[in-house]
Amino acid sequence: MKKSSSDRRFKLSGKRDVKSKTPVRGSRTERSRTASETYSADPRRSRTVREPQRRTPVKIIPLGGLNEIGKNFTVIECANDMLIIDCGLAFPDSEMLGVDIVIPDFTYVEQNKDKLRGVVITHGHEDHIGGLPYFLKKFNVPCYGTPLTLGLLEGKLREHDILDSCKLNVVTPRQTVKLGCMAVEFIRVNHSIPDAVGFAIHTPAGVLVHTGDFKVDYTPIQGGIIDLARFAELGNKGVLALMSDSTNSERPGFTMSERKVGDSFEKLFAKADGKRVIIATFASNVHRVQQIVNQADATGRKLAVSGRSMVNVIGVGIELGYLKVPDGLLVDIEQVGQYPPEKMCIVTTGSQGEPMSALTRMAMGEHRQVSVTPNDFVIISAKPIPGNEKFVTRVVNELMKLGSEVVYEDMYDVHVSGHACQEEQKLMLSIIKPRFFIPVHGEYKHLMKHKATAMSVGIPEERIIIADIGSVIETDGVDMKITGTVPAGRVLVDGLGVGDVGSIVLRDRKKLAEDGLIIAVATIDREAGLILAGPDIVSRGFVYVRESEELMDEAKKVLTDTLDDCLDRGMHEWNAIKGRMKDNLSDFIYQRTKRTPMILPIIMEI
Amino acid sequence: MKKSSSDRRFKLSGKRDVKSKTPVRGSRTERSRTASETYSADPRRSRTVREPQRRTPVKIIPLGGLNEIGKNFTVIECANDMLIIDCGLAFPDSEMLGVDIVIPDFTYVEQNKDKLRGVVITHGHEDHIGGLPYFLKKFNVPCYGTPLTLGLLEGKLREHDILDSCKLNVVTPRQTVKLGCMAVEFIRVNHSIPDAVGFAIHTPAGVLVHTGDFKVDYTPIQGGIIDLARFAELGNKGVLALMSDSTNSERPGFTMSERKVGDSFEKLFAKADGKRVIIATFASNVHRVQQIVNQADATGRKLAVSGRSMVNVIGVGIELGYLKVPDGLLVDIEQVGQYPPEKMCIVTTGSQGEPMSALTRMAMGEHRQVSVTPNDFVIISAKPIPGNEKFVTRVVNELMKLGSEVVYEDMYDVHVSGHACQEEQKLMLSIIKPRFFIPVHGEYKHLMKHKATAMSVGIPEERIIIADIGSVIETDGVDMKITGTVPAGRVLVDGLGVGDVGSIVLRDRKKLAEDGLIIAVATIDREAGLILAGPDIVSRGFVYVRESEELMDEAKKVLTDTLDDCLDRGMHEWNAIKGRMKDNLSDFIYQRTKRTPMILPIIMEI
Repeated sequence: MKKSSSDRRFKLSGKRDVKSKTPVRGSRTERSRTASETYSADPRRSRTVREPQRRTPVKIIPLGGLNEIGKNFTVIECANDMLIIDCGLAFPDSEMLGVDIVIPDFTYVEQNKDKLRGVVITHGHEDHIGGLPYFLKKFNVPCYGTPLTLGLLEGKLREHDILDSCKLNVVTPRQTVKLGCMAVEFIRVNHSIPDAVGFAIHTPAGVLVHTGDFKVDYTPIQGGIIDLARFAELGNKGVLALMSDSTNSERPGFTMSERKVGDSFEKLFAKADGKRVIIATFASNVHRVQQIVNQADATGRKLAVSGRSMVNVIGVGIELGYLKVPDGLLVDIEQVGQYPPEKMCIVTTGSQGEPMSALTRMAMGEHRQVSVTPNDFVIISAKPIPGNEKFVTRVVNELMKLGSEVVYEDMYDVHVSGHACQEEQKLMLSIIKPRFFIPVHGEYKHLMKHKATAMSVGIPEERIIIADIGSVIETDGVDMKITGTVPAGRVLVDGLGVGDVGSIVLRDRKKLAEDGLIIAVATIDREAGLILAGPDIVSRGFVYVRESEELMDEAKKVLTDTLDDCLDRGMHEWNAIKGRMKDNLSDFIYQRTKRTPMILPIIMEI
Repeated sequence: MKKSSSDRRFKLSGKRDVKSKTPVRGSRTERSRTASETYSADPRRSRTVREPQRRTPVKIIPLGGLNEIGKNFTVIECANDMLIIDCGLAFPDSEMLGVDIVIPDFTYVEQNKDKLRGVVITHGHEDHIGGLPYFLKKFNVPCYGTPLTLGLLEGKLREHDILDSCKLNVVTPRQTVKLGCMAVEFIRVNHSIPDAVGFAIHTPAGVLVHTGDFKVDYTPIQGGIIDLARFAELGNKGVLALMSDSTNSERPGFTMSERKVGDSFEKLFAKADGKRVIIATFASNVHRVQQIVNQADATGRKLAVSGRSMVNVIGVGIELGYLKVPDGLLVDIEQVGQYPPEKMCIVTTGSQGEPMSALTRMAMGEHRQVSVTPNDFVIISAKPIPGNEKFVTRVVNELMKLGSEVVYEDMYDVHVSGHACQEEQKLMLSIIKPRFFIPVHGEYKHLMKHKATAMSVGIPEERIIIADIGSVIETDGVDMKITGTVPAGRVLVDGLGVGDVGSIVLRDRKKLAEDGLIIAVATIDREAGLILAGPDIVSRGFVYVRESEELMDEAKKVLTDTLDDCLDRGMHEWNAIKGRMKDNLSDFIYQRTKRTPMILPIIMEI
C-alpha cells in the first residue's frame, strides 16, 4: 500500500510546489494525538467495557449537500479552529430561471472567519470544488487536495483570475494535514474521477471519518483500490462519527467496477467495425476516457477530442500522469475528415444532452468539424441525471435521424455509477464501526434509506443523526446531538452577480416567462390634469401583436378611459392612478384571454 | 366473446342515446365489403400465390403522435371521404413557457373539411381525446367511441360548453361504423384505461389495422382480454397495413398484468397495518382504482377521494358501471378526520408530483382536509414520466419529512405499464401479418426500435414505413409509399388563446425568463430637441433594485448621455434614437453584469 501511495506523488507544476509550505506529515512518522487515545467508539463495546470520557466539544455543521444533491460544504469546528470539507456548486433547478449556478451561503464562515484554517477537498467534481472560486475570493485560506483535484481546481481559479493569489497544497493519500487543533488524514477511495479521497479528521473529541463520494472498485483502472485497510484500522481504534455518501442508498447490491464499461467498449468497438465511433461521457471521468483511449489504440483508430471541458480534463490528466495516451494516437479535431471512419474515434462532451454541448451540436448538424452520418456509431456512456432525460432523448432521436447507430442508457452496460450501493455502504459502516452515524450527500429520501441500512447492520437508531444544512451537530466524544442552527441556504450566481438574484427577481422572471408583460405608458401634465402623450401600450411575450390589433386597441381604450376618469376626478396620487390602470387593464386582459401578464404602468410627469 | 361484448353495452345517459343516430352495424349481421374480399396481404404469401390488384388509393396522414409523445391524430382519406383517428393533446415541454397545452395543427383538415365524415376514438386518455374540444369547435362532425371514452369526453365538452351541440355515438367492440366509403371496426385491446379499442379500417384499397395504445393482459381486472381472435382473423384474411403502438418498443419482454399491482397492494396494505393508507395514481386508470377499492374493502377501510380528476373519473366510472364500489365504502374527504387511521384509505391524484395536485398539497402541508403524519403509509402507484422525476422526488422527500412511510417507483411493483413491450409487439405483428407496417405513437428512437422488432419477425425492411407528422402515406393495395407532405405541427394553447402564442412570443418569454427586462422611457419635445421627462428606468426580473441603486443610477446616466447626444446631433428618427439607447444600455449592462436583459426603449413625443 505504502509503495503505491508514493507512486502517486506526481510531478507538479512549479507554482504549486512553491506554495506548498504546508504542515503535511507522513502517516508513518506521526499520528495525531487524538487518534492514538484508544477508547472504544463502538457503541456495543463501549457500553460493556468503559465509558468514553467527555472532551473538548467539536461541531459538525453541514452547510450544503444534505437534503439536496450538490454544493457539498461542511464546516468542522473545534475551540478556535475551523476547517471546511469541500465547497461545491449545484445546478439551478427549473424554477431558478436564468440562474447559472448555485453556491452555498457563506454567512456562518464570514461570522467566524478568524477561526478558519483551511479547506480540504475530497475530489475534483463540480459539486465539490465548483464553489471554491467564490469562496476563495472571500476567504483566501490554504486549500489541500490530491494532485488531480488541484489540477482541475487550478483551471477554475485561472478563469476567475485568482490563481496567483491562491494557496494550493498537494497532499497524497495517507498523508495528514494539521489545521489548528485538528488533523486531517487523506484516505484513498474509488469514485468516478481519479484521486478521490475520504478523510479521517482527528479532533480533540475523537476521530470523525468523512467518506467523500465513494464506491468500492476491486479492479480499478488506475490508482488502486479504496484503502479499506486504513478505514478498518481507524475503526478498530475507535471512530466517534462517520459521515458517509448516501447518493445510491436506494440501490441494493454493489456498484459494478469501472472495468465493466471497458468490456462493453470492447464489444461495441467490434460491433462498430467499419464505422467511426463517437463516445460521449463526463469529461472528469478520466478512467472512462482511459478505457476509450485503450480501445481506440487496440482497434487501430486515431482519437480526436471535442468539447471544451473534455479538452481541458484530458490535458490536465495527461500532464499529471493520470491518463496514459500512446504517442501519435491523438489528432486534432480539425483533422477528423482526413481519416476514414473505421480509423477514427471521437471522444466528446454532451452525455447529458446539454443544449450547447459538442454532442448536441453534432446531433443538430451544427458542429463545425463533425458531421454525423450512417457511418457513425455513437455511444452515450452515461446515465441521464434526473431532469436531463428529455435532452438526452432529443439528442438520441436526432442522431438516429442522421442515420447513425446510437447506444444509450441501459444498453450494453456502457455506464457504471461512481457511488456506493447498499452493500458497499454496509461494508463501510461495518469496518468503521462508528459510535455515531451521519448520512450525508443526498436528499432526505436518500439519507433516510442510508439510516435504514445503518440500522440493519446494528447501528442503534438513537445514534444516527439526520441533519439538515445549517444544523449544528455537537459532540463531546460521548454524546452527539443537534444543538442549534446557523444561517444556511443557497446563493444564486447569474453572470457576474453573486446573490443579487433572490426570490423577488425569480418571482418576476417566472411571471414574465409564463404570460409576458404589458407596459402602459403615459405622459401627464398634473397641474393641468391633461394627458400630454399616450397612453401607449407595449407588450412582449404576451400575444403576437400583429395578429391581435383589435385586442390591443381595446386595451388602449380601457387605459384612456381609466386615465381620463382619474384626471376628471382630480386624482393626484400617481401610485393610486397607476394602481387603477393596472387593475382595469388586468381585468380586461384576463376576461378576454384568461391570461395574467405582468402589467407595468409608467406615468411620466411634466 | 360475443356474450362478454354484449355485457358491456352499458346503460347510457339519455342525451347520448338520443344522439346515437349512427350507422353502427353489428359484426354478425354485416361485414364491410372490402374486408370480405380476400386477397392475401402477407408479403411472403402474396409473392408466391397471386399478386394483389391495384385499387382506389387510400392516404394515411399522421398529423400527430409520430416523432413525439402525445397529441395523437391521424387522417385516413379515400376518394371523397376522410376520417380521423383520435385527437389528443400534448403537454408543453420546458421551452414552451407559459403554454397550457399543445394540440395538432388542423390546417389539412380545414382544407378538406367537406370530406370529413367523423372521428373514431381509441380510448379516453388526454393524448387521444384532449384536442377534441378544439377540433369539434371547428368541425362539428360525429364522434364514435366506447362508453367510458365518451363519458370522459363528455366532461371535457361540458367544460368547453359545447356538449349540447356535439354528436357523440356509442360503439362497442366488434361493432363497425360506416364512414363514407370506409368502415371502421372496433376491436377490444387492453390498456391502462378500460374500454380501449383498436380499429380495423376497411377501405377500398384493403384493411388497415390501428392498434391504438395497447398491451396484452391475460388477467385483466375488467372488460376481458384483448380480442386476439379478431386480430388473428383479420390477419388471416389479409391486412394491408398495420399501425402499431411503439411507446415501449425499447423494452424487451412482456408488460406485466395489471393484476400484479393488486398483489402488491395486498402486501402493502398488510404492511400498513394500523396506519392510514394514501395511494396516488392516474385518475384514468380505473382498473387501478378498482384494485384500491377492493383492497380498502377487504381490509375494513373507508375510502375517500381527493383531486378533481380523480373525483370526476370515479364518478363517471361508477355511473357507467366500470367501477364497482360497495355501498358505504366511499366517504366524503371532509370526513377523513372522523375515522382512525387504520380504518381509512385515501385515493388521490398527484402521482407525477404535479405542483398543484392533491398529493403535492398534502406533502407541502397545504391540503385542506388531509394532514400527513407518521401514521400515514403513502403509495405512489405510478412511474415518473420523463421530465417529472424531480417533482416526484420533492413530494417523496416532503412526505418523508412529515414522518410518513412512502413507497414509490420500482419498490414493490406498485405500477405496471399500459403499453406493449417487444414480445407483445411481435405477437401483434405475427397474427396480423401485414403487408406493410407503420410504427406509430413514439419518438424516432421508438419507431426505429419497433422497426427492428418487425424485421426480426420477418417483415421486409422495404415494407416498413418510418413516417413523420405531415407525411402523406399512400397505398393502392399493392404499393405503399410516402408521396408528399401536408401542413402539420403544433398549435399552442395559452388560456383562451389557441395559436396566438408562436415562436416570437416564446422567444421573448425565454429572454424575459433568463435575465428579465429593463425599460428605458423618456418624453421628448422633438421640435425643440429637448428631453421633457426622464429618461427613467424600470426593471423587472433583472436585479433586486434596492440593492443595486448605484448600477441603476449609472445606467440612467448612460441613457441621459445617449439621448443628449442624439438630440444635440439633431437626430429625428425615433427608431434610430431608440436603437442607440438600446445598444448603449445593453453594452453597459453586459460589461457590468455579464447579463443580457431585454431592453425596451420607449420614447413619448409631445
